[in-house]
Amino acid sequence: MDIIALIMAGGTGTRFWPLSRIKKPKQFLPIISNRTMIEETVSRLLPLIATCNIFTIANSEHTKLIKELLPELPKENLLVEPKGKNTAPSLILATAKIYLQNPESVVAALPADHLIRDTSLFLKKLEAGAAAASQGEYLITFGIPPAHPSTGYGYIQFLTENPLRFSGEKFYSVERFKEKPDYEHAKSFLQAGNYFWNSGMFIWKAEVFAKKLKHYAPTMYMYWEKILDALNKNDIKKLEKIFDEIPSISVDYALMEKAKGVLMCEGNFGWSDVGVWSSLSEIWQKDNQGNAIRTEAITIDSKNCLVHNPSKLTALVGVKDLIVVDTEDALLICHKDQDQKVKEVFEKIKKKGKIDYL
Amino acid sequence: MDIIALIMAGGTGTRFWPLSRIKKPKQFLPIISNRTMIEETVSRLLPLIATCNIFTIANSEHTKLIKELLPELPKENLLVEPKGKNTAPSLILATAKIYLQNPESVVAALPADHLIRDTSLFLKKLEAGAAAASQGEYLITFGIPPAHPSTGYGYIQFLTENPLRFSGEKFYSVERFKEKPDYEHAKSFLQAGNYFWNSGMFIWKAEVFAKKLKHYAPTMYMYWEKILDALNKNDIKKLEKIFDEIPSISVDYALMEKAKGVLMCEGNFGWSDVGVWSSLSEIWQKDNQGNAIRTEAITIDSKNCLVHNPSKLTALVGVKDLIVVDTEDALLICHKDQDQKVKEVFEKIKKKGKIDYL
Repeated sequence: MDIIALIMAGGTGTRFWPLSRIKKPKQFLPIISNRTMIEETVSRLLPLIATCNIFTIANSEHTKLIKELLPELPKENLLVEPKGKNTAPSLILATAKIYLQNPESVVAALPADHLIRDTSLFLKKLEAGAAAASQGEYLITFGIPPAHPSTGYGYIQFLTENPLRFSGEKFYSVERFKEKPDYEHAKSFLQAGNYFWNSGMFIWKAEVFAKKLKHYAPTMYMYWEKILDALNKNDIKKLEKIFDEIPSISVDYALMEKAKGVLMCEGNFGWSDVGVWSSLSEIWQKDNQGNAIRTEAITIDSKNCLVHNPSKLTALVGVKDLIVVDTEDALLICHKDQDQKVKEVFEKIKKKGKIDYL
Repeated sequence: MDIIALIMAGGTGTRFWPLSRIKKPKQFLPIISNRTMIEETVSRLLPLIATCNIFTIANSEHTKLIKELLPELPKENLLVEPKGKNTAPSLILATAKIYLQNPESVVAALPADHLIRDTSLFLKKLEAGAAAASQGEYLITFGIPPAHPSTGYGYIQFLTENPLRFSGEKFYSVERFKEKPDYEHAKSFLQAGNYFWNSGMFIWKAEVFAKKLKHYAPTMYMYWEKILDALNKNDIKKLEKIFDEIPSISVDYALMEKAKGVLMCEGNFGWSDVGVWSSLSEIWQKDNQGNAIRTEAITIDSKNCLVHNPSKLTALVGVKDLIVVDTEDALLICHKDQDQKVKEVFEKIKKKGKIDYL
């Protein structure tokens, strides 16, 4: 069994503005370590998967960045999506490409910008997931045991009874995918115990993916066939035309929610999607006042701040719970409880037409 | 009567870090308008005093800045103090220099870094003060009616009865100079009504200044004589030696507190010493959320902030009462209530030996 790792690097990440920009979103930034997140993501896989089996998918501009950052990946593995159109079109294109090489390949679709703390457990689960995907007609996903009633994630509802076992790991039947809930629902999900966060990681055999599309998402299957045909003919123009037409929907919505035979494995390997600035408070090293500071700093009566300002001296005086991000052309000062609103800053800049700052 | 304006530009201003630096303290910064404070100070005087009668005193490095900023001032009027030694030595040197030209000159010693909102009233009072100084053996000062029980200023206690009158203005006999009080004392001063803030502005006839020194500050008078002698001989080396020796004390402490014949005029002309960042909140234009922002900015749920960041886009999200100052090599984030601690930042940097940031 060949496991093909497919790194999804199409995210636009507006929530890490002003560090992340359209030309350089989060996955291309050294946010959790001194290496970019996509480098961390690839590096994490190397004990299990050889570089010849690691693929990426992104737009053409970002693919140039990938080429620079990851010269060890074969150039033909760097798949280009003609247009950013959410995860369903992107994964159909990538899986089709892999299908043409070998329909029995097992594809593990992994976001380029997630953090996983326990790499060896992750690889163990990934291997088990690939075993499951190769042995039956399953779509596999990882569910994250929820740490709190988050309204920022989708949830996977699963049957706790009679899990299947592959390579010693349990795989639960998925009952339903739930979109991001309100707080009351999130609390009840946490209490119920059989709702895990949707991590956005998926494993499937290429030919099984095609089969499931055909049964449960016939419209998208039509695009699958068109894409296969365009790839077969190496017809870039046709591929572009397909991407103009194809609906911009997530694979969760297009397929996972509708399909039977979806299994969930517990992703208890220290996962974080590092979705907002404040999530880095738990990742960066802190001083004894709880300040996580990536710069030379002077702090006086200040605590629980997060500072990214690598090129300057930063002084904090009498402040707390602030996110401070200073870049060459923009400065963000944001209360930690409000960092989901960084997206609004991005929208406001867009509205003002100040595209240089996007 | 010649009024000689003597602009005291020797301040080192650590409280406006990171914008103010040792090489460029507050008086050389465009803090209250688009012009530097020293330019504003000189410009304010021009309706009354010709440039040939405007002198400055500063160290040699700062005098170079003055030359660039104020080319209209005669070069021989730009007095250089060999060493920064507080206001008494500085004013003895400058007054001696002016005394040698004409002992009957009236000297108005004015800090280079104060704000005065009502220029015409200020000039009226200045003219009256000069009249008082020329007509009797007085040392004149301006007292500012206190707006609140400040612990950041010295106070002038005066006799409310029987003020003298010159050019239609009242001049009260000064009873005592009070150093910066604690809060309880400041409150009682405010209640008493005959305690005004010490503005640090003084007017005296050069020969009267010498006489008062001789009577009330004999040690400093000895230095006056030595300085006169060195100036007469144009002996720079000797002047340097005197400045090595002379005590580093304020003119308040050396002379004003001890002398008889000190008069105070009410300085109700919209004075501010612009002593800390937060004082600019009352000077800069504010948006309808109370944010005083000198930069391109995006604000979301943020109020009462002060932002100086002319070269960058600044985004504020969910924050209030912050001072944000971004410069080429340093960033300050400070709560408005804590801006007197900016001085501590300066001291900490000094202690760390990071002299580039001072």
